[in-house]
Amino acid sequence: MESRLHKVWGENKGALNGWLSIPSTVTAEFMAMQDFDSLTVDLQHGLVDYQTALTLFQAVQGYGRTPLARVPWNEPGIIMKLLDAGALGIICPMINTAEDAKRFVGACLYHPDGYRSTGPTRAGLLHPNYFGEANRTIISMAMIETVQAVGNADAICSTPGLSGIYVGPSDLAVSMGKSPGMDPTDPEVIANIDKALAAAKKAGIKAGIHCLTPTYMRKMIEKGFDFTTLSSDVRLFISGVAGDVKTFRDLEAGQ
Amino acid sequence: MESRLHKVWGENKGALNGWLSIPSTVTAEFMAMQDFDSLTVDLQHGLVDYQTALTLFQAVQGYGRTPLARVPWNEPGIIMKLLDAGALGIICPMINTAEDAKRFVGACLYHPDGYRSTGPTRAGLLHPNYFGEANRTIISMAMIETVQAVGNADAICSTPGLSGIYVGPSDLAVSMGKSPGMDPTDPEVIANIDKALAAAKKAGIKAGIHCLTPTYMRKMIEKGFDFTTLSSDVRLFISGVAGDVKTFRDLEAGQ
Amino acid sequence: MESRLHKVWGENKGALNGWLSIPSTVTAEFMAMQDFDSLTVDLQHGLVDYQTALTLFQAVQGYGRTPLARVPWNEPGIIMKLLDAGALGIICPMINTAEDAKRFVGACLYHPDGYRSTGPTRAGLLHPNYFGEANRTIISMAMIETVQAVGNADAICSTPGLSGIYVGPSDLAVSMGKSPGMDPTDPEVIANIDKALAAAKKAGIKAGIHCLTPTYMRKMIEKGFDFTTLSSDVRLFISGVAGDVKTFRDLEAGQ
Amino acid sequence: MESRLHKVWGENKGALNGWLSIPSTVTAEFMAMQDFDSLTVDLQHGLVDYQTALTLFQAVQGYGRTPLARVPWNEPGIIMKLLDAGALGIICPMINTAEDAKRFVGACLYHPDGYRSTGPTRAGLLHPNYFGEANRTIISMAMIETVQAVGNADAICSTPGLSGIYVGPSDLAVSMGKSPGMDPTDPEVIANIDKALAAAKKAGIKAGIHCLTPTYMRKMIEKGFDFTTLSSDVRLFISGVAGDVKTFRDLEAGQ
Amino acid sequence: MESRLHKVWGENKGALNGWLSIPSTVTAEFMAMQDFDSLTVDLQHGLVDYQTALTLFQAVQGYGRTPLARVPWNEPGIIMKLLDAGALGIICPMINTAEDAKRFVGACLYHPDGYRSTGPTRAGLLHPNYFGEANRTIISMAMIETVQAVGNADAICSTPGLSGIYVGPSDLAVSMGKSPGMDPTDPEVIANIDKALAAAKKAGIKAGIHCLTPTYMRKMIEKGFDFTTLSSDVRLFISGVAGDVKTFRDLEAGQ
Amino acid sequence: MESRLHKVWGENKGALNGWLSIPSTVTAEFMAMQDFDSLTVDLQHGLVDYQTALTLFQAVQGYGRTPLARVPWNEPGIIMKLLDAGALGIICPMINTAEDAKRFVGACLYHPDGYRSTGPTRAGLLHPNYFGEANRTIISMAMIETVQAVGNADAICSTPGLSGIYVGPSDLAVSMGKSPGMDPTDPEVIANIDKALAAAKKAGIKAGIHCLTPTYMRKMIEKGFDFTTLSSDVRLFISGVAGDVKTFRDLEAGQ
Repeated sequence: MESRLHKVWGENKGALNGWLSIPSTVTAEFMAMQDFDSLTVDLQHGLVDYQTALTLFQAVQGYGRTPLARVPWNEPGIIMKLLDAGALGIICPMINTAEDAKRFVGACLYHPDGYRSTGPTRAGLLHPNYFGEANRTIISMAMIETVQAVGNADAICSTPGLSGIYVGPSDLAVSMGKSPGMDPTDPEVIANIDKALAAAKKAGIKAGIHCLTPTYMRKMIEKGFDFTTLSSDVRLFISGVAGDVKTFRDLEAGQ
Repeated sequence: MESRLHKVWGENKGALNGWLSIPSTVTAEFMAMQDFDSLTVDLQHGLVDYQTALTLFQAVQGYGRTPLARVPWNEPGIIMKLLDAGALGIICPMINTAEDAKRFVGACLYHPDGYRSTGPTRAGLLHPNYFGEANRTIISMAMIETVQAVGNADAICSTPGLSGIYVGPSDLAVSMGKSPGMDPTDPEVIANIDKALAAAKKAGIKAGIHCLTPTYMRKMIEKGFDFTTLSSDVRLFISGVAGDVKTFRDLEAGQ
Repeated sequence: MESRLHKVWGENKGALNGWLSIPSTVTAEFMAMQDFDSLTVDLQHGLVDYQTALTLFQAVQGYGRTPLARVPWNEPGIIMKLLDAGALGIICPMINTAEDAKRFVGACLYHPDGYRSTGPTRAGLLHPNYFGEANRTIISMAMIETVQAVGNADAICSTPGLSGIYVGPSDLAVSMGKSPGMDPTDPEVIANIDKALAAAKKAGIKAGIHCLTPTYMRKMIEKGFDFTTLSSDVRLFISGVAGDVKTFRDLEAGQ
Repeated sequence: MESRLHKVWGENKGALNGWLSIPSTVTAEFMAMQDFDSLTVDLQHGLVDYQTALTLFQAVQGYGRTPLARVPWNEPGIIMKLLDAGALGIICPMINTAEDAKRFVGACLYHPDGYRSTGPTRAGLLHPNYFGEANRTIISMAMIETVQAVGNADAICSTPGLSGIYVGPSDLAVSMGKSPGMDPTDPEVIANIDKALAAAKKAGIKAGIHCLTPTYMRKMIEKGFDFTTLSSDVRLFISGVAGDVKTFRDLEAGQ
Repeated sequence: MESRLHKVWGENKGALNGWLSIPSTVTAEFMAMQDFDSLTVDLQHGLVDYQTALTLFQAVQGYGRTPLARVPWNEPGIIMKLLDAGALGIICPMINTAEDAKRFVGACLYHPDGYRSTGPTRAGLLHPNYFGEANRTIISMAMIETVQAVGNADAICSTPGLSGIYVGPSDLAVSMGKSPGMDPTDPEVIANIDKALAAAKKAGIKAGIHCLTPTYMRKMIEKGFDFTTLSSDVRLFISGVAGDVKTFRDLEAGQ
Repeated sequence: MESRLHKVWGENKGALNGWLSIPSTVTAEFMAMQDFDSLTVDLQHGLVDYQTALTLFQAVQGYGRTPLARVPWNEPGIIMKLLDAGALGIICPMINTAEDAKRFVGACLYHPDGYRSTGPTRAGLLHPNYFGEANRTIISMAMIETVQAVGNADAICSTPGLSGIYVGPSDLAVSMGKSPGMDPTDPEVIANIDKALAAAKKAGIKAGIHCLTPTYMRKMIEKGFDFTTLSSDVRLFISGVAGDVKTFRDLEAGQ
C-alpha cells in the first residue's frame, strides 16, 4: 500500500496531482497515461458519483498513480465506501473545526484509531495485508477553505491521524468576501494560505493546495507545499478545444 | 440565469411544473418537449440518483424549462452537487423547523448568505456570471408536509434567502393520521394547506404544491399558489398504458 | 419454454403485444405490470441497443409476458445474441424475398433446421431443456412491409421453420408511394395487408400487425390476425403527458 | 407484502440470505436463480450505489426471494429511497445506541410509528396496499457490531418497531482489538455474539448474522439465529475462479 | 430540419466540424458549448456505440450544432438507427465503389430514393415534418480513403442522392503504402486528395476532409473543401493535459 | 505489443485463457486478479456489447493478461472497433470456408495484408508504435466449429496472416447431429477435433479450444493445443454459488 505519493514524499518532493471531474473511464484513463503522481476523483464539485468513481479507480489502476477521492461532504458513509473501492486517501471539504477533523479522520481509520467499518471489498483484493497496513498508510487531507478554518488551523492540524491539509483557495477567498478564483495573488488571501501552511508544517503533516497552472504549482512547492493539483480534466479539456476553435474562427475572419 | 420560471412569476402567473421520476434521458427529453415551465428531477421518491440526475439536466437543457431538483433529504452534499450540475433551484423535503430551513437555505447560497462551496462545474459553464448571480436567482423551496411544519410555517417562511415553500399534501395528510393521497378534498387537510399558503404570502415568498390533475392545479393557482406540479412522469406513463390495455381487454371480452 | 403467447395462440385468441422503445428498465417493468401477453423490445426503430435490451428482458422476467425482440436488420449476429439473452422470439424487418426469410429463420434455429450457434447463456439458465425445445418453440416473425414482400408473400410464408409474419403498415404504405402512418384506412394499403394475411393463413403460420389503437387491433383480430401490437411505450407516454399539459394550458387560457 | 422471509420465519426456520456486492444485474439474477430465501443488496461494503441497487431489485424481482438492502450509514435519505425502490427490509450498520436504533427505525416506518415520507414509487406498484401494510411488514435489522453495541443490546433490541438485529462478527472482533474475520471461533467474540443473540431473544425480535460457510450458518441457526448470510457474491465468485486456476497451474507444474 | 450546416453551406463557407470519440455526455456537451458548426459522433474509430451515441445527440441538442454520425461500416441497420436517433447526416467509411455508395445512400433515404425504414422515433419528435423533409435534407457523406476509391471517385460522386464525400487522409496514405497521419504534406497523397475534391466539385456535391490543425483546415477550405474536421475530442484532451504535465516536470527539473 | 500470450507461446507452453461473459468491470477485474495468461471478452454468447467490452478492457488493463475478444459474427465493423479499443486479438465464430477466413483476417490487418481502417484510438495510446507492429502481433483465431469447417480446415489454416484456429466443441457436436456440450468424450467429435488440430499444426499456426475443466485443458495441451479456455465467468460463478446453497439445504434437511 506504499504508493507513488508516499515515495514522492519520501524523497521530499512536491507531488503533481491530477483532478478527475468528468464521469468517464475513458478520460480518466487518458489522464492516468500522463505523468501524474496521484489522481483525485472529485465527488464534490466533479460530475461524479460513487458508482462512477468506482469505475474511474478501475480505469486508472494499471498506471501507478495514487488513487484519491474528494468526498462531497464530511459524511462517514461515502468516505468508507470510497476507501473500500480502492481510494488510498480522502480529501474532505469544509473542515472548519477540530471536531470536524476528528469526525473525518475517524471515518478513515479502523479501531482503535477511528470507527471505520471493516469490509474493504476491492481494496482488500488489491492489497493483501490491507487491514494491517490501512491505518498507517491511508491518507486523510482536511480542506482548509474558510476564514474559520484558518483560525482553527492549529487545532485541526493536531488531530491525531490526520495526514495533511488541502487548501481550497477559491472558497477561502469567498469566505473573505472576495471573488472566487484559483492561483490567487491577493495578499490577504495569500496570508491566510500561508497561515494554513505554517500550521501544517508546525504539526508535521503534509500540505496540499489546488492550483491552476504549473507555474503557480511550482511556486507553491517552493513555498513548502507537498501536494499540488493541476487544474482539472474539465478545465484542461475545454481550454484545449476553445483555443483551436478560436484559431479557426480567427483564420476564417482573416485575422 | 433568469429562467422561464422567473419570467412566469414576473407575469404573476402560476407555473406548470413537470416531475421527473424515471431514470431515463429519453423520457426526460420527451417531457421537455412539452410545454412545461419547469422540470423537477426528483431524487427523493423518484427512481433517480445524482449521476442520472446530471444526465437528465443535460437532456432537458435545450428546451428552456427551468431545471429544478428535489433532494432526498436536507443534506448539504447533495444539494450543492445538484446546483453545480445545473439545477437552478432545489426543493427540500421535510423542513419542519426554522432551523431545518436555515440549514437548507445555507447550502443553496454562497457566503455571506450561506455556506455553499464554490466550484459550479457545469452551472458555471452554462451561466458565465454564475457566482455573481447565483445568490439572487437560485430558487430554494422548503417542503411543508407535516403538522409540525404547518405549526412552524411562519418561522420557516421568514428564513432569510428562502424563495418559497412547496406543500406535500400526501405526507401532510399522513402526519395528520389520514391516508396518503394527492389533490385532497378533506377540509382538515385543506385547512393546513391554506395555513401554509397564508404564511408564504405573508412572508412575501412563493408557494408551490404537488398536484395530480390539471383541474386541481388550476384551483390551487386561483387560490394563490405560484407553482403547481402535474403528477409525475411515472403516473402519466402508467395511466396512459393501463387505459389502452383495459380498452383492448374490454373489447376482447365484448364489452 | 411454452410461454404465454403459445397459450393464447393455443386458445385461438389474438395476442396483445406491448412495444418497448425506451431504453429504461423502469418503463419496461411498468409495461410488464400491465396485462400484455407479450412484450417486444424494439432494436430497430426503438432507442435500444443489445446491452440495454438484455436489461429490459431481465426487468420484465418476473411478469410472465413472452419476451420478443425486433432486430435492426436481418443479421445473424444480433439475432443470436438476443435469443441467447432470453428473447423467445424474433421479429425481423424488411423480409422481402424467400431468400431473406431463409437467412432469418436459419439464424433462429439450431442445426439441422438452421445455423444458430449454441451457447444460450441466459436463456439456457432460464429454461433447463433449452437446446431440446428451442427449435420447436422459438418464434420467428418475418416483417412484410414492402410491395415486393407482398408480392413474395407466399414464398416467404412457406419458409420451413418460419412461425409467422408481422405486417408493418407504415413502411408498406411508403413503399406504395403513400404517406407513412399506422392503422391505415386506405383501401390499397388494406388490400396489401389482406394479401399478406391470406398468405400466412394459407401457409398455416401466424400473422401479426403493428397497430396504434385498441379498436383497430380488435378489427385486425376479427379479420384473422393472431398478434397485434399496441402502439409503443414512446407514443403512449407522450400522448399521456401532452394531453394533461394541454388541459392545463386550456384552463389557464380560460377555455 | 408477506414475503418468503416472513414465511420461513412463520415456520420457525432459519433463513438463507444471499449477499449482492457486485454492481451487475447479471450476477444478481444468477444469484436469484439459486434457492435463497432472501437477497440483500449491500450498499455499505458492496460495490453498489442506489441507481444500481434499483436495477438489482428489478433483476431479482421474478424469483421470489425477499429483497433487502444494507445501507451505507444510518441516514434517512438512502433508507427511504431503497424502501421506495422495493426493498422489503433494511439492514443498518453501526447501531451502537438506542438513539441510533430509534433514528433508524423511524426512517423505515410511516407516521405514527416513524417519520418515513410517503411516495413508494416502485414499491407501491408492486404491492397494491403498500401504505396499509408497510409498517407491519417492512423488516428493520440493526447491526450489532461493536463492543458498545453489545453493551447496549437490550436497549437497542427494545426499540419499538425494530424487527431484529444483525450481527457483524468481523467489525465486532475489530472493536475488541482483534483481527477482522468471518465465522469466528474466538471465545470472547462468541461470548459477545451470544449476548447480542440473547438480547434479541429476550426482546422477542429476530436475530441474524453474517457468515462465510454453510456449516457455520447451520451452527448459528441451531444456536437460535433466524437469519444467516452465505458469504457474498464477490467471495463466492473469486474462490470459484481461483480454485480452478490453481488446479490448472498445479497440473501444468506436474503436481 | 434546415440546420446550421445547411446555412453555412448556403453562405458558401467551409464548415467547422467537431469530432466526438469519447463516450461521455459531459465531454460532448462541453464540445457543444464551443463554436462548432456541426458535431460528428464517431462510431467507427471513436469509443462509442449506438446507445451512447443516442445520449450524445441528446447532450448536444440545445446548442444548435448539426448532429452527424460516422458509422462503423456500410451497414443499413446502424445507419438507420442513428438517423432515427436524431443524426441529420451520416459519414460512411470505406466507400470504394459506386455500388458501395448506392447501398449507403439507399439506407439514408426513404422510398422512392432509398430503402430506409420509417419510424424516426426521436428524429420525428424533433422535426414535425420529418418524413416530408428527410430525403431532401439528410446529409450523406461517402468516405474516400483508398486508392481504389480515388480511382472510382467520379462514379461514387455521381450516385443519386449522395450529399458529399469525406476524405480520410490517413487511410488514403496507408492504402498507398505510406504511413498513416493527418494533415499530409506528401505530394502523392495530396494529388489523390485533389482528385477526390475535383470529382466532388464536378458532380456538384460537397467535399469534406478530416484535419488536425486549424491552419490546415483553412488551407483545405481555401482549396475548395466545404467541411473540415478539427482533430477529435480525444486528441485535443490529451494534448492539453500532456502539455501542462510536461511544463510541471520541466519546472521541477529546473528547466 | 508483445504480450503475455506471445511469451507463453515463445516458451512452447499451452496458455490458460479466461472467458468474460458478464457485463461488469467488477467481475472482469476479479478475473484479471487471477493467474490467467489471457482474457477473452465474449461478444458472441457472452452478455456483452461493444460499449461494455471497452470498459472490460480498461478494467483488466493493469494486470498483464493479453486482452482478446470474440466477435458476434464475421463482420469487419465490430472486429475493427474491438482492436481499436485495445484487444490484441480476435476470435471469430463460424469460419467455415477459406473465403470466410480471408474476410476475417483482412479485417484484422492493415494494408497491404488486409483492409483494416487506421485510427486505433485507445490501442494506439497504449502501444506507441502500434501501426508498425500491429500486423505482426495482432492475433486472429478462426473458429472451427462445424463439420463443414473441419472439411475445409486445411484451406482455412493456410489463410495468409491467420494466427490460429479455435475449436468450439459444442457447436461442432451439434453440427454432427449430437447434443451440445463441453469437454467431449465422443470419439467422433474427438476425431474431428483432432483433424482441426492436425490442420493447424500442418500450417504452422496455433490451435486453441474451449474447455470446461482444468483436467480436460491439460489433456488438450498435452495433445498439442496452444491455447485452452477455462469455462467462463458465468459458469464458474454459478457453480460456486449453487454448491454452497446446496450444502446449506442439505445440512438443513439433516443430510
